[in-house]
Amino acid sequence: MRKFNFCAGPAALPEPVLLQAQQELLDWGGRGCSVMEVSHRSAEFTEVAERAEQDLRDLLMVPDNYRVLFVQGGATGQFSAIPWNLFGGEVQSADYIHTGQWAGKAIKEASRYGKVNIVASSEDRNFCYAPAANAWQESEKSAYFHYTPNETIGGVEFNYVPEVKAPLVADMSSTILSQPIPVEKFGMIYAGAQKNIGPSGIAVVIVREDLLERAMAGIPRSLNWKIAAEAGSMDNTPPTFAWYLSGLVFQWLKAQGGVEAMYQLSLQKSAMLYDFLDRSDLFSSPVDTASRSRMNVPFVLADDRLDARFLSESEEAGLLNLQGHRSVGGMRASLYNAVPVEAVEALVSFMADFERRVA
Amino acid sequence: MRKFNFCAGPAALPEPVLLQAQQELLDWGGRGCSVMEVSHRSAEFTEVAERAEQDLRDLLMVPDNYRVLFVQGGATGQFSAIPWNLFGGEVQSADYIHTGQWAGKAIKEASRYGKVNIVASSEDRNFCYAPAANAWQESEKSAYFHYTPNETIGGVEFNYVPEVKAPLVADMSSTILSQPIPVEKFGMIYAGAQKNIGPSGIAVVIVREDLLERAMAGIPRSLNWKIAAEAGSMDNTPPTFAWYLSGLVFQWLKAQGGVEAMYQLSLQKSAMLYDFLDRSDLFSSPVDTASRSRMNVPFVLADDRLDARFLSESEEAGLLNLQGHRSVGGMRASLYNAVPVEAVEALVSFMADFERRVA
Repeated sequence: MRKFNFCAGPAALPEPVLLQAQQELLDWGGRGCSVMEVSHRSAEFTEVAERAEQDLRDLLMVPDNYRVLFVQGGATGQFSAIPWNLFGGEVQSADYIHTGQWAGKAIKEASRYGKVNIVASSEDRNFCYAPAANAWQESEKSAYFHYTPNETIGGVEFNYVPEVKAPLVADMSSTILSQPIPVEKFGMIYAGAQKNIGPSGIAVVIVREDLLERAMAGIPRSLNWKIAAEAGSMDNTPPTFAWYLSGLVFQWLKAQGGVEAMYQLSLQKSAMLYDFLDRSDLFSSPVDTASRSRMNVPFVLADDRLDARFLSESEEAGLLNLQGHRSVGGMRASLYNAVPVEAVEALVSFMADFERRVA
Repeated sequence: MRKFNFCAGPAALPEPVLLQAQQELLDWGGRGCSVMEVSHRSAEFTEVAERAEQDLRDLLMVPDNYRVLFVQGGATGQFSAIPWNLFGGEVQSADYIHTGQWAGKAIKEASRYGKVNIVASSEDRNFCYAPAANAWQESEKSAYFHYTPNETIGGVEFNYVPEVKAPLVADMSSTILSQPIPVEKFGMIYAGAQKNIGPSGIAVVIVREDLLERAMAGIPRSLNWKIAAEAGSMDNTPPTFAWYLSGLVFQWLKAQGGVEAMYQLSLQKSAMLYDFLDRSDLFSSPVDTASRSRMNVPFVLADDRLDARFLSESEEAGLLNLQGHRSVGGMRASLYNAVPVEAVEALVSFMADFERRVA
C-alpha cells in the first residue's frame, strides 16, 4: 500500500506515472523490451526525448530562443557548469544572493573560477528569509546574476523575480513546475529532477541561446551547454529511463491542468500546513511569513525531546520522511506537485492529534 | 512478450532483475513508496548503495586499497575526469593506445589538458585489430597509460593486459564483468553502466587510493574522484534508481556464478557467432581473428543491398537492434552478460536461413 511521502528528494512521484512505468517495464509498447534497453538514438527513444522537451516547453511556455537540455550531474554539476559556461566573455565576476545551503554551495563553486559578489545575504538571521527586492543592488558589471528561488533545506522562497541587467540565473530544483514563471526574464534556469520532475540522475537546463557562446577555454566537455545543445543532449548516452519518466511526469502535469493548477494546489496545501503551524502551541515555522516556501515546510516542536516520538509515530501513521535535513534538525514536510492534498490533510490531522496527546 | 535484444547500449538487462524492479516499483519492500522516492541518505537506500559496492567488489575481487565510486556523466564524463584527476602531479602527459572511436574520444578530450602520446594505433587498417604487446613502447614519463580493452563500435578486444610502469587506466564500459580481471594491475578502471552493469545514467569508477591526490587545481567538483570517494559517491544526489538496478544486476551475476561463469558463457556465445561468420559466404567479420570481441560482434553482408532486408526480417523474427553503429554501417550483435545463449542460437539460425533464402 502506498503511503504519504513528504521526502525532500528524491521525492514522491505521481502514482499514475509509476503505474504506467511499472506496466511497461519489461515490454514497452509491445516492442518486446524495456525503454531502458533501447538505443538513445533509436527512433522510438528519440520520440520520447522530443516529446518530453516539447511538453516541458509547453508547460513553462519556454520562448523559441531558449534551448532545453537534459543533463547529468544534478544542480551541483551546474554549480560548476555555470561559471565555466559564462566566465569566458569579458567579465569574470558574478552577483549571487546568499539564502542558505544551496546558494552557499553555488557560491563556493563559482568562487573557484571568478569573483563572486554577494550582493545580499540572509545569513544574519540564520537564512530564515529571502532578502527583499529593495535590500540589494546589482553590481556595475557582472557575467550573470544568480539566486535560489527556493531553498529546499531552509524552506525559504522568493516571492518576486529579481529585476537585473545581467543574465538572471536561477536554481529552480525545488520549485520548477510549481508555478508559472516568466522564462524570458531569465538567462538560464536549472533544476535537478528529483523533486518536481522525475527520478534523480537527470537535470534540466533552460538557457538563452546567446549565452551558449561564453564558455571558458578548457571547459570539460560534459559541462558544455553548447555541445549539449548541438547534440540534442546526446553527446553521450543520456539517462534514458530518467528522461522517459520525466516525460511521463510532464504528461501527467498537463493532464492535471499544467503549472497554474499546480500553483493553486501548492497555495492550498502549504496554507493548510502554515495555518496549522501558526495556530499550534507545539509546532511552529522558523521562516518569516513573507518568505515561506510553498514546496518545503520546515517546522520545529517547542520541546525537541518530542522529536523522536513525533517521527516514529508519524511514520507508523503512514506519513513518511518528515525528518528535517541533517544539517538543521527539526522537521520538514515537502509538498511537491506529486504530494496530494489528502497527504497534507492527513499530516495536519496527525499533528493536531499528536499535540492533544502530548499536552 | 520479451524478444532477443542485441542492442549495443543501453543494452538488454537480465529479465529477473527487471521483474523484481517491476514488482516493487510502487511499494519497495513494503515501505509504501518506490526506491526512487526515498532520500539517498536514508538508512534503507544506504543499505542498497553499500551492498551494491560490496557485491561489485566481490565480483571483481577489488583490493582494499581501491575505491569504488558510482558517478554520473558516463565514460564520456571520465574522458575529462581522467586528465583533471591525474595531470596535477609532476607529469602532464599520458600515453594512449588508439584503437577506434572510443579511444579516439578519450584522446581528444585528454589532449585539451596535457600532452597525449599515441604509443600505438590501429588506424592503419581502419581499427580492425588491437596492437600487439610487442608493437609499442611506453613513454619514459607519463602520468598514466590509457587503453580501451574493448571497442564497442569496432568490436575489437585486447587479449592481453598491457604491462606498464605508469598507472594503467582502462575504459571497460563494454567489457566489465564479462571476465575476471587483475584489478591490482590497474590504476583506474571506468565503465558506463548501460552495457554490462545496469541502465544508462550511472558509471562505475575503480581507482587506486594513491591516485586520489593528483588532481589539477580548478577541477570541477563533479569530476573530482577524491570528493566522490570522501562522500561515498554522495557529494550530491546520486542516480538512486540506476544504482539500485545495478545492485540487482550484481546480485544476479553472483547467482549465475560470477564473472568466471560470464566469461565462459561469453566465449561460448561469441564462438557460436564467429564460427558461423567464418563458414558463411554471405556474412563475414571485419575484425582480425586475434582481436575479436566477445561482447560486440560487427559483421557485414557480402552484398550490402541486402542490409535493409536483413534488418527488417531479423526484427520481424524477434531479433532486435542488429543495425551497426551509424558511423560504420553494417550489422552488430552485442552479446553482453544479459543476452542468453538462446538469443545467439536464434540469431545464427536466422542468419543461416536468411543466407539460404537469398542465395
